[in-house]
Amino acid sequence: MKTQNSSKLLYFEDLEIGKSYGSKQITVDEHEVIEFAQRYDPQPFHTDPEAARQSVFGTLVASGWHTAALTMRLRVTGDLQLAGGWVGLGIESMKWPKPVLPGDTLHAVFEVIEKRESKSNPSRGVIRVRTSTYNQREELVFETVSVQIVLRREPAL
Amino acid sequence: MKTQNSSKLLYFEDLEIGKSYGSKQITVDEHEVIEFAQRYDPQPFHTDPEAARQSVFGTLVASGWHTAALTMRLRVTGDLQLAGGWVGLGIESMKWPKPVLPGDTLHAVFEVIEKRESKSNPSRGVIRVRTSTYNQREELVFETVSVQIVLRREPAL
Repeated sequence: MKTQNSSKLLYFEDLEIGKSYGSKQITVDEHEVIEFAQRYDPQPFHTDPEAARQSVFGTLVASGWHTAALTMRLRVTGDLQLAGGWVGLGIESMKWPKPVLPGDTLHAVFEVIEKRESKSNPSRGVIRVRTSTYNQREELVFETVSVQIVLRREPAL
Repeated sequence: MKTQNSSKLLYFEDLEIGKSYGSKQITVDEHEVIEFAQRYDPQPFHTDPEAARQSVFGTLVASGWHTAALTMRLRVTGDLQLAGGWVGLGIESMKWPKPVLPGDTLHAVFEVIEKRESKSNPSRGVIRVRTSTYNQREELVFETVSVQIVLRREPAL
């Protein structure tokens, strides 16, 4: 799997507030949904199609942490290639407005919503990014606002 | 893997604000760190011990999403067994104050910090939970505040 595409690396100076970046697509595989959940989120509505029908969801749904992890893959392989990588300082919010079902095809949009120089390190900047993950019907299934470190091309004076 | 322990299921009425619940322990395996990251967070500081030495971390570290997923396992197999399962409405904050390294042993503490009746559904309540994950030196490595649905033993009047 490809990691950073060094030809398109974006530094702090390159990033514009309000600009959005796209991603590849991932189709969610039922086997992987069950396997992820058996390991990390072993609840019947994520691991057992039969039991899931009796649950609050009425059908097998992906663990929210699986959706988050798939979204991380969309970030790392997407068009917002941050210099220094995707290194998070923290998450301000995270929500899952609709469940992700096996067979769904996801893509994500990354919007830079704020940027500032690092107070402590002249070689870095800090950005806030809104990550929105959609299914094949363009329904929002996951949204998070995070704070990320990004390297500067030139150290701040 | 065990899911909910039905003998200890906690309903909305059973939960006290300020009460904390414990978890099992998980030791983080280097092979699993690399495997998770190759799939979901393919950045050199998570997948390649050699390249990680040149990175901002100076050593191989677990993906923050891997730490989050391991923490979900500690929830589902821990002492705060929510009736209806761990079904999240959203996350209010999430941070990773220290990196998780291969070989670390993690455990978590779950504190109920707020509870209220559901406005829309008399069979459910809503709680806010602070989940704190620690390593074997009792250093905080992950903390999140989330909003969870929990079933009521008796519907609200």
